Amino acid sequence: MKTKIFATIVLLAGMMPAGAAADNSFPAETNVPEAAYPRVDDASRAYFRLAAPEAKDVKVDICGKKYDMTRDDKGVWSVSTDPLVPGFHYYFLLVDGVSVVDPASETFYGCGRMAGGIEIPESKEEAAYYTFNKDVPHGRVSECKYYSDIEKAERRCYVYTPAEYEKRTDKKYPVLYLQHGMGEDERGWHQQGKMANILDNQIASGKCVPMIVVMDYGNCGYGFGARPGETREEFGALFTPILLNEIIPYIESNFRALSDRDNRAMAGLSWGGHETLQTTLYNLDKFAHIGSFSGALFFLKDGIDKAYDGVFNDADAFNSRVKTFFFGMGSEENFGSDLISKALNDAGIRNTYYVSPGTHHEWLTWRRCLNEFLPLIFKNK
Amino acid sequence: MKTKIFATIVLLAGMMPAGAAADNSFPAETNVPEAAYPRVDDASRAYFRLAAPEAKDVKVDICGKKYDMTRDDKGVWSVSTDPLVPGFHYYFLLVDGVSVVDPASETFYGCGRMAGGIEIPESKEEAAYYTFNKDVPHGRVSECKYYSDIEKAERRCYVYTPAEYEKRTDKKYPVLYLQHGMGEDERGWHQQGKMANILDNQIASGKCVPMIVVMDYGNCGYGFGARPGETREEFGALFTPILLNEIIPYIESNFRALSDRDNRAMAGLSWGGHETLQTTLYNLDKFAHIGSFSGALFFLKDGIDKAYDGVFNDADAFNSRVKTFFFGMGSEENFGSDLISKALNDAGIRNTYYVSPGTHHEWLTWRRCLNEFLPLIFKNK
Repeated sequence: MKTKIFATIVLLAGMMPAGAAADNSFPAETNVPEAAYPRVDDASRAYFRLAAPEAKDVKVDICGKKYDMTRDDKGVWSVSTDPLVPGFHYYFLLVDGVSVVDPASETFYGCGRMAGGIEIPESKEEAAYYTFNKDVPHGRVSECKYYSDIEKAERRCYVYTPAEYEKRTDKKYPVLYLQHGMGEDERGWHQQGKMANILDNQIASGKCVPMIVVMDYGNCGYGFGARPGETREEFGALFTPILLNEIIPYIESNFRALSDRDNRAMAGLSWGGHETLQTTLYNLDKFAHIGSFSGALFFLKDGIDKAYDGVFNDADAFNSRVKTFFFGMGSEENFGSDLISKALNDAGIRNTYYVSPGTHHEWLTWRRCLNEFLPLIFKNK
Repeated sequence: MKTKIFATIVLLAGMMPAGAAADNSFPAETNVPEAAYPRVDDASRAYFRLAAPEAKDVKVDICGKKYDMTRDDKGVWSVSTDPLVPGFHYYFLLVDGVSVVDPASETFYGCGRMAGGIEIPESKEEAAYYTFNKDVPHGRVSECKYYSDIEKAERRCYVYTPAEYEKRTDKKYPVLYLQHGMGEDERGWHQQGKMANILDNQIASGKCVPMIVVMDYGNCGYGFGARPGETREEFGALFTPILLNEIIPYIESNFRALSDRDNRAMAGLSWGGHETLQTTLYNLDKFAHIGSFSGALFFLKDGIDKAYDGVFNDADAFNSRVKTFFFGMGSEENFGSDLISKALNDAGIRNTYYVSPGTHHEWLTWRRCLNEFLPLIFKNK
């Protein structure tokens, strides 16, 4: 009775109990089936709930901030966040100090583990390029297993083939090798990045050419120099020989892939951008299209003339070989792509620089970077 | 110093601290990269660890038993289990009463949410049929998105194509529709069930014919009659029309699929077995091969003569139409496949019955059922 009267007073006063979802809220698309929470409202606030009657302290850890959740008399904890930047965010619940995945969330490999994730929607128009469109043909993302002699183990890659691939059996396709970031793996671009929707939409509208996209594990998914004694230089360094000697031959013998350098691209985000430059700039006989999204760390540390064995010292030679040289990052992060692009411009190296407005070091930045990068590549004359 | 002396005494006495892993233990194959725990030893015991200095109580919930974990002086909790049945088991950690996924585990959709999972290995020989073999050709599992007019939403299916599919562009293949169980989804057979390895190995040895396998969502992934007012009969019932009117046409127009009934099979586990019988026995013009693994609930509730509109009343007609009619279950579960098979035998209905020795209502039962079922189907004369 007391509870009911209190509830009535709260409603009459027009107050919203802590964590109660606004009327215009809806379940996040990243929830497991039928989960009513987490919710998102029109102001991009997220609402979280967890039943934890025996816990002393429950928090949500999202977008670099920890929100204390409030317990009701049944032991259900809830909270609403500040308005969040649109796009995909990893998040965790802290249950008595233990960082765990919200049971209501799908999981996404990030932060070196399976993480919770929430999609904060943009407007329909802004989101159109990465949204499933029932009126365009859809490609497939195939999981392929192969054996690595270098690792002496089974490996897995994901391969996007465009909708027409199944039936155009006479045709071969250019290939983009697309890398995830540190603490992530070969699933990232497909699940968090929505790359298949981006490709489907661009191919349908003729914005990019139909292509194969290969996403493999960059050997940098487990943390930062996490193996005992592993240095920053060694972290993920195994990936280049695996890509060149195993993945590319595997793709070119198992898919209808074009195999000349003009039809081979590589791009990556964050540490995957670093891996992209480490791989392509030492192997320009194999790649003509290069993209680094919030990546390319250490690029300028010894000056541009010393970078990558002096590859930038002959600008004309570089410009004639590299058809696409793309750098991008979010306006709210500080990963140096702007400085790199400027240094390259100063050295006469042709490149494209893109800034994603309002975004941090996160997947919306990289969806946008991919969306900018795709129309540039494989437009070979 | 005190700690060191104590440790020495423990070692000298040959005692094993609670939860300390045996020397012959190794990280579970279901761990995320580089995670040292959970571990499994030669006696099929599992060892779990969690850093949770502020928690009051931590347990592991696995195989129907909750094990109390023990806290050390740094706040790391650990425990070892009894010897576990081999195969795949879902598990959760209970942190102050909240059921969460072990941060060191990969995740698997089960129990209506993303769950932790651990693979307890069998001997190499026993596990060979579902183990990745580098010396056989590997098929692909493709994720395909399509729009459902029935659901007015995007749906997703996984499609296994055999290794030869890419290059044998002149050839069409028979199709098996393979369903997960309650609280699971279209990922289950591939991730928990290792179906691609089973198919790869059988196709390579000629044990089964090369085929396409389609795994879609059975609309029963969120619990038991979980929507308000939904009955047991309604639970998952939407799936049959989606399969018949949307999934099958989608597959047959997007893959090189044979489309006659002799080349179409359906099987499922648990609730997916129920869905299989609900779908096929009312549509024998469309399916000639049927499998139910630990499924077929309610089959006998009104007597076999009344089951499925009396389809079993003309044994000769049934036997001439249905080329494969398979039932299987684990010896340690009680899901009635034995009773169904006996009742069918008594009614003169030809069927195959298989018991998986030593296993419960769990994935090793279903891997084995699939391994028994595949050689029987599509051997059409």
